[in-house]
Amino acid sequence: MLRAEIVSVGDELLKGLRINTNAAFMASALAGIGIPVDRIVTCSDIDADMAAVFSESLQRADIVLVTGGLGPTGDDRTLSSVQRLLGRGLELNRESYLNLEERMTRLGREISPALHGQAMVIEGSRVMVNTKGTAAGMIIDCGEPFRNHHLVLMPGVPSEMKAMMELDVIPFFARHSTSFIQHTPVKTFGIGESTLSEMIAEIEGTLPDGTTLAYLPHAAGVNLTISTIGSTDEEVERQNSAVVEAILQRAGQFVYATGETTLEAALGERLGRRGLKVAVAESCTGGLVASRLTDVPGASAWFLQGFVVYSNQAKERALGVPGALIERWGAVSEEVARAMASGALERSGADLAVATTGIAGPSGGTAEKPVGTLCLAIAEKNSGEVRSKMLRMHGDRELNKLRFSEAALRELWEALPSR
Amino acid sequence: MLRAEIVSVGDELLKGLRINTNAAFMASALAGIGIPVDRIVTCSDIDADMAAVFSESLQRADIVLVTGGLGPTGDDRTLSSVQRLLGRGLELNRESYLNLEERMTRLGREISPALHGQAMVIEGSRVMVNTKGTAAGMIIDCGEPFRNHHLVLMPGVPSEMKAMMELDVIPFFARHSTSFIQHTPVKTFGIGESTLSEMIAEIEGTLPDGTTLAYLPHAAGVNLTISTIGSTDEEVERQNSAVVEAILQRAGQFVYATGETTLEAALGERLGRRGLKVAVAESCTGGLVASRLTDVPGASAWFLQGFVVYSNQAKERALGVPGALIERWGAVSEEVARAMASGALERSGADLAVATTGIAGPSGGTAEKPVGTLCLAIAEKNSGEVRSKMLRMHGDRELNKLRFSEAALRELWEALPSR
Repeated sequence: MLRAEIVSVGDELLKGLRINTNAAFMASALAGIGIPVDRIVTCSDIDADMAAVFSESLQRADIVLVTGGLGPTGDDRTLSSVQRLLGRGLELNRESYLNLEERMTRLGREISPALHGQAMVIEGSRVMVNTKGTAAGMIIDCGEPFRNHHLVLMPGVPSEMKAMMELDVIPFFARHSTSFIQHTPVKTFGIGESTLSEMIAEIEGTLPDGTTLAYLPHAAGVNLTISTIGSTDEEVERQNSAVVEAILQRAGQFVYATGETTLEAALGERLGRRGLKVAVAESCTGGLVASRLTDVPGASAWFLQGFVVYSNQAKERALGVPGALIERWGAVSEEVARAMASGALERSGADLAVATTGIAGPSGGTAEKPVGTLCLAIAEKNSGEVRSKMLRMHGDRELNKLRFSEAALRELWEALPSR
Repeated sequence: MLRAEIVSVGDELLKGLRINTNAAFMASALAGIGIPVDRIVTCSDIDADMAAVFSESLQRADIVLVTGGLGPTGDDRTLSSVQRLLGRGLELNRESYLNLEERMTRLGREISPALHGQAMVIEGSRVMVNTKGTAAGMIIDCGEPFRNHHLVLMPGVPSEMKAMMELDVIPFFARHSTSFIQHTPVKTFGIGESTLSEMIAEIEGTLPDGTTLAYLPHAAGVNLTISTIGSTDEEVERQNSAVVEAILQRAGQFVYATGETTLEAALGERLGRRGLKVAVAESCTGGLVASRLTDVPGASAWFLQGFVVYSNQAKERALGVPGALIERWGAVSEEVARAMASGALERSGADLAVATTGIAGPSGGTAEKPVGTLCLAIAEKNSGEVRSKMLRMHGDRELNKLRFSEAALRELWEALPSR
């Protein structure tokens, strides 16, 4: 079985100035062709550090994917480091140069000496033309000293790396991979990690060889991933789905999806299937609920309208919430949430409307309604019902906003029976 | 100078199921007390892997921060691995047990055997009580075999790790640190990496010893970070700000902030200072512009209202966009964007309104208006002016939405002169 490691080069990662999203993308893409990743290393762009990390990883892993340090600026030194490690020269790659020329012509610019370097590659490597930028990528067979293990160099810009992974790296290594991996996410809400763990302890204790189970707590619950590795597609598929089935039998009431889907996408699917349209009225979530719903491709089929009513005046004008109601109960109250939901339902013509009003923080909290308080209401056209509840979250502004929006989506979900 | 490494334990990271945000937080916190991070390693929760990685990192670095593998479930094996590596036993920590008991009582639950393990710690370690959860954290002096280097164990749940970093880890190591680090972000938009690089080439070529410059391209431009390390606070401060000053002189017109601020926060600050109120009307961005603006604490002082008008009907009803205008020019047109901005200005009572209508994709594009097309308009109360423009982005749905929202914020920014 081929095994891989990932090396991310870049001081900005070590300084905590940027989050390493590239590594997760690459790991997930490799898993798709049955190649597990054993280690992910982030190192600085200092020559000696890079050379040490590349060499250690190449000794352990069949494939080492490297991103970063290929740009046109002074802090880009990956190529010179690989040159020294492998004792190979650089050569100009014609295809990459033409790509560079075409891009610069389109922008009406000259090819500066710094940019010229973007078409230079390690001798004898398989070159990947950069369809989203200028720096060339490479797949390098490292020869005898590294038992023909492969080093793959890609730019650190996510869109450029992703295009190379999809067009070149994955097709190239898929041909050599002999194993199959399947990860099935089982997505839940409304249950904590340890309760879920107790509920499925027996399944976890008797997992078949080759299958593992991971817990990923998130803002509103916990997701599971069931991973199976094996040598035939059918066997992996069978073993994996048996475990997923067993979990659904034990904890199915907390599961909103199995597979790579989000709560908003699962919700959209349900709304679309039932031909229902939704509207949202948001105070404390400030547009986040609408934004999450419209992240789903095709949302226009079931999402009608959002009202981001931050000020009291906006609540009155846009949704017809009576000023006296706000005066009497306060903007953060179940009464106002219900009036917001009803107003949104009526003014949008939707079948279902959800409303949020609360205190995300850091300021605005009181003894009675501390930071983290959320009032949530849902209004249904068919039944004429308007329901509300009050919840309490414990996070900073950003986390509270996220949890508030999660609660609103969950409320919508629960208003839509699966049949 | 003390130097650190970070180890993130977890199969979910290696499988690409989760992005490693913890490492960036820890690196940034260490930088704040003058401790640079040389390597970040992600490894699996298999005992042998963990032991190898811990041992390698402890040999190189004075401080090794580990997160993950301390939870109550079967895939949590960090403690047993450290036990074997250091040859030490486990003991029950009284304070952590009381914390556990208190939390479970509050939830009306028993302490299960699995949970009991959450209060077990490595003998002779400095224990960090978990103020946000159950698993105890530890700071361990690893003794002779590792030249008294320190191993710090923390849970992988971000809120729990962050609390331990702030309450225990940072204060503990700050006392031992002898150097100072300053990172100053210089945030720009409207300029590419290589153009900016040419503009400040002379500064980059003559950076003083101890100062480095990093480029971080983002969706709408590039951010720079100027980092200086030295032995006195004043010297670091002086050297760092001299470089920042020099960059502002060369490329100031592209800079919207120096320091840890976002475009939306910088915008809010400008709006607040001038006493102006803003409203947004969003079709293709679906609430993202409003959500980003309301991410800023205190946004209620300058953000009035958002109109998420996804359907044509909503554009007509909520903003008074004439149906005939949509019919004639299409929903994605500068004409409709202008009508949306005017409608939002009028109906919200704001001083400034920005409107977005476009095609985020993946479907909905035409030859004339392909996916990535954005029509943007801004309406100003004082001048009575309404301006619009059409832009073209090249991303997937998510990236397009982000770039569309960035363009809207930038448009607002440019409508607000700095004086």
